[in-house]
Amino acid sequence: MRVKKLGEFGLIDLLSKRLKHSAEVMQGIGDDCAILPFDRKSFLLLTCDMLVEGIDFTLGDKPYLVGSKSIGCCLSDIAACAGLPRYAQISLGLSPNMSISRVKQLYQGIIFQAKKFKVKIVGGDISQSDKLIIDVSLLGMVERKNLTKRSGAKKGDIIFVSGKLGGSIYRHHLTFTPRIKEARYLVGNYKINSMIDISDGLIQDLGHILKQSDRGAIVYKDLIPLSADAHSFNQALFMGEDFELLFTLAPRQAKRLISSRKNKQFFPIGEIIDKAGGLVMLDKQARKMKLTSGGFKHF
Amino acid sequence: MRVKKLGEFGLIDLLSKRLKHSAEVMQGIGDDCAILPFDRKSFLLLTCDMLVEGIDFTLGDKPYLVGSKSIGCCLSDIAACAGLPRYAQISLGLSPNMSISRVKQLYQGIIFQAKKFKVKIVGGDISQSDKLIIDVSLLGMVERKNLTKRSGAKKGDIIFVSGKLGGSIYRHHLTFTPRIKEARYLVGNYKINSMIDISDGLIQDLGHILKQSDRGAIVYKDLIPLSADAHSFNQALFMGEDFELLFTLAPRQAKRLISSRKNKQFFPIGEIIDKAGGLVMLDKQARKMKLTSGGFKHF
Repeated sequence: MRVKKLGEFGLIDLLSKRLKHSAEVMQGIGDDCAILPFDRKSFLLLTCDMLVEGIDFTLGDKPYLVGSKSIGCCLSDIAACAGLPRYAQISLGLSPNMSISRVKQLYQGIIFQAKKFKVKIVGGDISQSDKLIIDVSLLGMVERKNLTKRSGAKKGDIIFVSGKLGGSIYRHHLTFTPRIKEARYLVGNYKINSMIDISDGLIQDLGHILKQSDRGAIVYKDLIPLSADAHSFNQALFMGEDFELLFTLAPRQAKRLISSRKNKQFFPIGEIIDKAGGLVMLDKQARKMKLTSGGFKHF
Repeated sequence: MRVKKLGEFGLIDLLSKRLKHSAEVMQGIGDDCAILPFDRKSFLLLTCDMLVEGIDFTLGDKPYLVGSKSIGCCLSDIAACAGLPRYAQISLGLSPNMSISRVKQLYQGIIFQAKKFKVKIVGGDISQSDKLIIDVSLLGMVERKNLTKRSGAKKGDIIFVSGKLGGSIYRHHLTFTPRIKEARYLVGNYKINSMIDISDGLIQDLGHILKQSDRGAIVYKDLIPLSADAHSFNQALFMGEDFELLFTLAPRQAKRLISSRKNKQFFPIGEIIDKAGGLVMLDKQARKMKLTSGGFKHF
């Protein structure tokens, strides 16, 4: 059997099964970050993201934005766990014929994002490669009380997103702002039961929360905020790389969030139900649509 | 200017200059690992290594050994800092046409090494790529008192290597044992002033110690232990990927190491001198040979 037949998530499942996790690792493969013990008050968060030319960006994209995206994906993972990013390593696969000026611009994009989020770049590796490759690994921290995982969604929770969705491929996937600040605001002021960043598409990432939490969900079609960049409603459901937060919290907490002055950037889109209910979408006429977990997959 | 003209180390210099390090980071780009504060007794060590098909291995190499090498390179970096490895992340760039059986074998090689050195694999990323890419990032720890860096070599220090050198490309670069145990033995029993792992070749890596320590060195040609795999003496000097430790310690410490029962695996090869003396090699007839820093470079 070949990689493309098993698929990305089949492959992740297969490889994860080969690893036995000890109690010491709080969460390994299967969340946005690995969650590791640090001290009595905090966890370490570890994450990595690999971008490959022709898949995650094209040679036509500005190198500065590609650099900024490469670390941005990791920052978004740290945000999903409500952590603070600290240290990054950058592995580059470069073609011998790439111009130094392009390498500099790429690095400048990485450094800009790093500075913005107070991340120190502390190491890396350079290798030769026909196609440009950037793999960023990021180490962060989160107070134990603030940690948010995919697995904590409870029946009755209201589901929110942190911004408008869809059409990311036309621009947003290179220019998004990782939602570190928003995640920190949320855990500082509300009890967030579960959280993920939308990298594979709303429905697929909601599916991850539901699977890990053993729950189902109803989303209300007319509540899903559509980005001006989106060419169709389906793009808001299935297109990857929005890099917005998707999170759930209890109804009373949700009410408080909706009525707060900062509510404008957080959109309630549905609610968590029993697992048996599956994942359904309702439109204004209360017509039910069954959602299968479409969304971006590498294979 | 293009990447191949500036060269790998020119590029690293260029990119490092763009980063301002704070006192909080003990050592950033320019040592085997990034050395980060953890608690009063320990540092965190962070390192990554990217292997690219056609450069660091070929499609003809057994996937199991390629996997084992990928994490082995990182383990060797942790060994160079005398640390203990703890957590790894694996980023894979896979072709859609790669067989699942090959992916499994690759991963099995990674897991074997991880288990052997008590490393937990806690995350990773999978992307699509024409050429197979494996980027491992590894988080380790070292007691502050045991940390060894490239920069601590002192005049009069004796220079040692932890094994025979040369010819690694014929086999050893895929089958080497990372010298974690040896490094821990050394720092547990001796005062090691400086250490590095030989990944770019003896002379080039000794050059890194000398540059960071602001010193020179004499190596004795006849003391350099030649691997049975080596096709020429020059391969012991300049061929990369021996993954042996190269370290220095004061003469009295060195005498004790030589006379200890465990001495057989550690070979004294020279001594540290003033910077002005440069890096020279002497043969039996005391003929001096000036050594320029040849060795493996990616560009």
